[in-house]
Order: sequence, then structure tokens, then C-alpha cells
Amino acid sequence: MHRTGTNLPAVGEYNQTVVLDAIRRRPEGITRSELAALTALSGMTVTKVCRRLLAAGLVDEHGTRTSGPGKPAAVIKLNPSGGFAVGVHIDPAAVTYVLVDLSGTVRDHSRTGTPVTGDPSAVIEEMANAIEALIAGSAVDRSRIIGIGIASPGPVDVGDGVLLNPPMMPNWRQVPLRRALAEATGLPVLLEKDTTAAVVAELWFAAPGSSRDFAFMYYGTGLGTGLSVSGEVVRGISSNAGDAGHITVDPAGPVCHCGRRGCVGYVTVPRALVERAVLDGVLLADEAGDLDDMVAVDAAFTRLAALAATGDAGARAILTTAARSLARAIVLLVNLLDIDEVVFGGPFWARVSPVILDALPEAVREDPALVRPHPIRFSQSAIPVDVAAVGAATLVLDNTFSPRPSALLLAAE
Amino acid sequence: MHRTGTNLPAVGEYNQTVVLDAIRRRPEGITRSELAALTALSGMTVTKVCRRLLAAGLVDEHGTRTSGPGKPAAVIKLNPSGGFAVGVHIDPAAVTYVLVDLSGTVRDHSRTGTPVTGDPSAVIEEMANAIEALIAGSAVDRSRIIGIGIASPGPVDVGDGVLLNPPMMPNWRQVPLRRALAEATGLPVLLEKDTTAAVVAELWFAAPGSSRDFAFMYYGTGLGTGLSVSGEVVRGISSNAGDAGHITVDPAGPVCHCGRRGCVGYVTVPRALVERAVLDGVLLADEAGDLDDMVAVDAAFTRLAALAATGDAGARAILTTAARSLARAIVLLVNLLDIDEVVFGGPFWARVSPVILDALPEAVREDPALVRPHPIRFSQSAIPVDVAAVGAATLVLDNTFSPRPSALLLAAE
Repeated sequence: MHRTGTNLPAVGEYNQTVVLDAIRRRPEGITRSELAALTALSGMTVTKVCRRLLAAGLVDEHGTRTSGPGKPAAVIKLNPSGGFAVGVHIDPAAVTYVLVDLSGTVRDHSRTGTPVTGDPSAVIEEMANAIEALIAGSAVDRSRIIGIGIASPGPVDVGDGVLLNPPMMPNWRQVPLRRALAEATGLPVLLEKDTTAAVVAELWFAAPGSSRDFAFMYYGTGLGTGLSVSGEVVRGISSNAGDAGHITVDPAGPVCHCGRRGCVGYVTVPRALVERAVLDGVLLADEAGDLDDMVAVDAAFTRLAALAATGDAGARAILTTAARSLARAIVLLVNLLDIDEVVFGGPFWARVSPVILDALPEAVREDPALVRPHPIRFSQSAIPVDVAAVGAATLVLDNTFSPRPSALLLAAE
Repeated sequence: MHRTGTNLPAVGEYNQTVVLDAIRRRPEGITRSELAALTALSGMTVTKVCRRLLAAGLVDEHGTRTSGPGKPAAVIKLNPSGGFAVGVHIDPAAVTYVLVDLSGTVRDHSRTGTPVTGDPSAVIEEMANAIEALIAGSAVDRSRIIGIGIASPGPVDVGDGVLLNPPMMPNWRQVPLRRALAEATGLPVLLEKDTTAAVVAELWFAAPGSSRDFAFMYYGTGLGTGLSVSGEVVRGISSNAGDAGHITVDPAGPVCHCGRRGCVGYVTVPRALVERAVLDGVLLADEAGDLDDMVAVDAAFTRLAALAATGDAGARAILTTAARSLARAIVLLVNLLDIDEVVFGGPFWARVSPVILDALPEAVREDPALVRPHPIRFSQSAIPVDVAAVGAATLVLDNTFSPRPSALLLAAE
């Protein structure tokens, strides 16, 4: 392994993304001298970069501000309409489409059922049509669309943009989604795991001073675990990092599809909780419906969460047990990675968060396996709805605008 | 969270470490034009940097080399004696001291029993004396010693340089080791967890093309798990990352000190294997001695490993079971982090590696919980002996010389 050097053009590119990032994170506007102080760049560099950003339409000037002596300084703000990205989240239950602007605001969204039958080419045509309809309906200038991001359950082949045998999606095996969608729309397409998209979104929208080392517990049809280490998403060598599902948390629990008992990704997900509720008589079998039908599970899960919220002891016990199981897995993550924040999100999370967050933090703090107790924050995702879809769009923005020290490095011969 | 920019002085510093790193990794020598090609820096920049490195005595010129047309070019090599670092590894069984040169070669070493009684100040004096004796005995110019690195079992407080209640070391609680040793020796002192030191050493000595995403299974008195993500060691928010010991791998196994059954860091370590060997009649109780005495465990473990190596079925079965337990934990790490290499090392590793590596790779590959099977290399540490002590010394070299893109970033006001 060897490193390459850096030079002026690389530095110029990098400093441009640094300035843009600083402007983006200050929606109330920022002056050139404030930018210089915040980024540690010279006034001359900031002025030069701002001139370029203004010319590209990525930022605007909004009046002036006076602070201390000297003449009033122009206030620079991000131009949210300077660029847009489309985010697509493929989930076993639904495909969600969002159109976000440069500030990350969702301008429009739509949702369709996940096509479980039909050949892949028809599905890709359907997705391309949904994207075109989203763009057309939003009155956004198509030339301002930077690209499309897709978030999908793993495993994925990010290079080829292929979904590799994702669980619970029998028709999506080996679909070359990225290329096909790029051809169908004429736009650049990125593909990442849903957990990676969620972490990228979390980092993109993070408030100043947010944790740089956190786990994102993505609570969807399955349980995913995205990781941020030192402020960078952990992708792994094949971009398939983020699966903590086979951590044993209940050695006497039900048998996971891997053949072992009590895997956290099996015992805590909506399907398992609904199944438990039927076994415990908290839900009637009729209420639960077909456990292999994600739409039925979704409805039954809503009912279970509502019962727990209104104090039903049986429903509460099921969610509390799930909280303790999640806590055991989180303790292992904290021991391994020494993180100080756990962020929860994903399509099924909001319904159960009050009851689970009632029991989980204490279960983590008092776990006898916690090696070095230090404060750990348990927070909700910055994106309460459609975090994976917004994350997918953020992949595009992040890829285009996010300052990353590694971008400073030159390519060797 | 926001990023700062970069500028020319930061770039100069960074490029100097890049060039030094490239020279260091080419012990056969390298010309200026080869350096330029390798680092993607301009010939002028390389020439300027080399002039500075030559003046500082960090590199030397060794004759010339001709390749293609043009005049012969000077061959530049690292001057191994340009600088030295002391590494100290504190283990429950022994304290190891090494003196390494710039090339990472161990010039001298010594070992003492870990002082388990006595007050901390006497222990620190003993350590300072051992370090001075090592330096004096090596005939190295003391002004060329860059600093001292200490590797210790966790948890540690790296900022204050304090060992926080390390397991199995009752007398080492809250010892402000870093400051006290810096005062006693007059040298800068760094402290890190042993697993972190091992990973830093592995990255420092890694061959070109080595994995940037790996787990280091540190097999000592306890089991540690150091991590490299994208070629950077994972330290975590309090520098205590690297403990995977409480992963459940044997739900019906013996009870760990955390109160749960079958934790990998309990069932696979030397003490547990020796205990198992006595229970199975592979070792006599007399042969095993006192399980709380690390010296006795060390000797019994050597005996157990020797029996397994010569084909004793009972001894082999114990090590094979340990291999399967380690495999289960490794599968979880691969799922979570998508790594493609697992490196084994640490003081107890060499004795059991042939038997364990006979069973472990297959157990990982065929584990039903492995989410995305891809090739995983199982390798031995680049530092076969005293990896933590050499790693501790490498912390000092790495801190001084290693190119890191984050070093390019300016400090904000």
C-alpha cells in the first residue's frame, strides 16, 4: 500500500467543496470573512471559490450584513435550486422515489408497490417511468438533475450496479439495475446498500458537533447496521458492510434462517414480533394475516405498536424484549467500534420507537458485557420519513459536493 | 460537523511524508523519477523534498542507477539509523521493550516479569530504568530517539495516558503512565491499546497491495480485535475500539465473567483451552498448574499445543473447537465490516496457528450466517514476535512520518 501526493489543482477542487459544504450547513447565510474563519482558508481563496460557485448558480448573494467596523459584507446562501437529485429506495414492500434539492429538501415524492413478479426489463421500464413522472410533475428543469441514487437491500454489486440475490426479493436476482436505469433515463446512476445510504444521509444532514462514530440501526423489513467511523461511512471492500443481523442475542430464541437460534436480525424484525404477538395471544391470527405478505405484516405491526402505546401489557412485553435484544447487539458494536451514538431509523422504526427507547438505553448501560461504559446517545434519524430514499438522493449530492481529504490525493501512474 | 480547507504549507508537509513513506517501502532504493511516478508528484517537488530529507539525515544516496536514456540517477534509500523509537508492551505476563530503527527493524529488546505488586511509582521507575538500559546497551545516539510508544491491554485513557482498570492487572488501576514515564525519561510518550498498536504495525509493514480492510485477531492472555477500515486503524471515540470478546459463539459453553455463556473472548483464550484440556484428560491437573498464574498457563498451553501438533486427538479436538468458535466471531466481523483479510498474531498465536488455521478458513467459508461470501485471506502478522511491542514503537514512527490525508486539513479558528 502506498499513498500518492497532492498538488494545487487537487487542492483547489477540495477547497471548493469545503466552502460549498460550509455554506450549505449555514442556511441563514454566511459572509466571506466568516467562511474564511470557519474553513481556515485565506480570504483570497474564499473570494475566488465563491466567484466560481456564484457563476455555477450553486450559491446566491442575499443582501449584506454589518459586523464590527468595515463596510457591510455580502451574505452568501446556498441556492437550493442550483441542483437536484433523485433518490430511489427499493424495499421488499415498496419502491419509494424522492426528488431532493441541493439543500436536501424533498421537493416531491411517490411510492409504488415493489413488483414481485414480471421480468426485470419491465420493472426497469416501470421505474424509469416513475422517475420521469416525478421530474415532470415537479416543474424542475431537467438539466439541473445531477443524477439518480438507488438504495437497495444487500448484498449488492456496486461496481456493476447489480442487486445480488437480495433476501425476500426473488425476482431481483442479478438485475443489472444501475446500467439499465442509466440507459433508460440518460442520467448518471449510483447504487448503494440501504444502510450505506442511511449513514451518508445522516452525515450529510448532521448538525455541527454531531458524532462522527455512530451506528445506524436501520429497522425495516430486515435489520441493517450502517456504520460511520471518523465521519466516513464504512462501505467495506465490496460495499456490503452493514450486516449485524446474525449476532446471537437470545440463545434460547427462535431459529433464524441461518439455522442458529436468536439472531438479532431475526428475532427483532417486524415479522418476528407479529408472529410472537400471535403466539402470545396479543394479536389474533386473523389480525396478523399471512406472515409472508409484507403488506399484511406492516398492518399487523401497526396494530401491535398501537396496543403497546396504549399500555397493553402483552404488546409492551414483546417490544421490551425486542429492545433488550437490540441492546445486546448494540453493546457488541460499542465494544468493537467504541462509538458514542446509536441512531435509529427506517420505515418501521417510528411506530415502536417510544416503547423501545423506554427500555433500550438502560439495557445497554447496565449490560455486564459493556467493556468501557461511556455516555452513549440514542437518537432518531435526522430524516424521519423515507431515510433510505433521501439517503439514495444524498449519495448523488455527496458524491458531487462533499469534501473528503482523500479527494486531495493524486492518481499514480 | 464541518471540514476545514488546506493550503500550501500543509501540502508541503504532507508531500514530505508521502515521499518518505515511498522511500521507506522500497528498501532496494528508488530514484527521484521513480518517486515522482509512484507519488504522482512533480519532479521539482520530489527534488525539493528529497533535499530536505537528505539534510535531516532521514535518507541517504547510494550510488546511481541507469534506466533508459539520460544520465544515471542517484539511488535514494532510507537511513535506518536516522531515527529510533522505543516500544513497550505491557501484558499480564510480561513487559517487553524493543528499540526499533526507522526501517522498523528491532535493534535490541528486553523483557521483564510484569510487576503485580508494589506501588505504581516503583513500577514506573523500573520501566524507566529498563528503557534507559535498552538505549544505553544499543549504542544508539540518544538524541536520535524520537519517542516511546506503550501498548497496553484496554481499557485505556489515551489522552491522559492512563490504564483504566485493565483486566487481570489489579495493580495497574488508574496509573498515569504516560506522563510519569515522560517525566522519568524526558522523551515524548504515546499510549495506545495493544490491538491498536498491532494494527498500526501491520499497516506500517504491509506490502504494497495489502488489504486496507482487515481485522487483527490479537491472541494473547485475552482476545483482542483490532480493525483497519480503508487503511486507517479504527480507534473509536475514546481510543478503546477493538473488543469483540463478548460475541456469543458457543451458547452451551462455559460462563464468561460477564455472566453469559460462550463468549468468544472467554472460550478461546489460552486459560480456557488449558482448563478444557484438564477436564478432558488431555493434560493432568499437575501439568496445568494454577490457572490464575499466567506463567503456569503459558507452560501448560505450550504443552497442549505440542500435543496437538504431534497428532494427539484430544488436544487437536480442543484447538479445532476453538477454531470453529473463532470462525463464528469472524463471520460476524465480515458481515458487519465487509473485510477481506483476517490477520492473526499476538504472543500465544504461533504455537497453535498450524492446527487452528487447518480448520478455521473452511469453517468461515461454510458458515451459514456469512451474508456475502467473497474471498477472505487468513494471514499471519507481518511481525511474528512481539507484535504489540513493535507496534508500540511503530506508533511513534507512524505519528511522525505516516502520510495521512487528514494531516492536510487546516485547524479552524
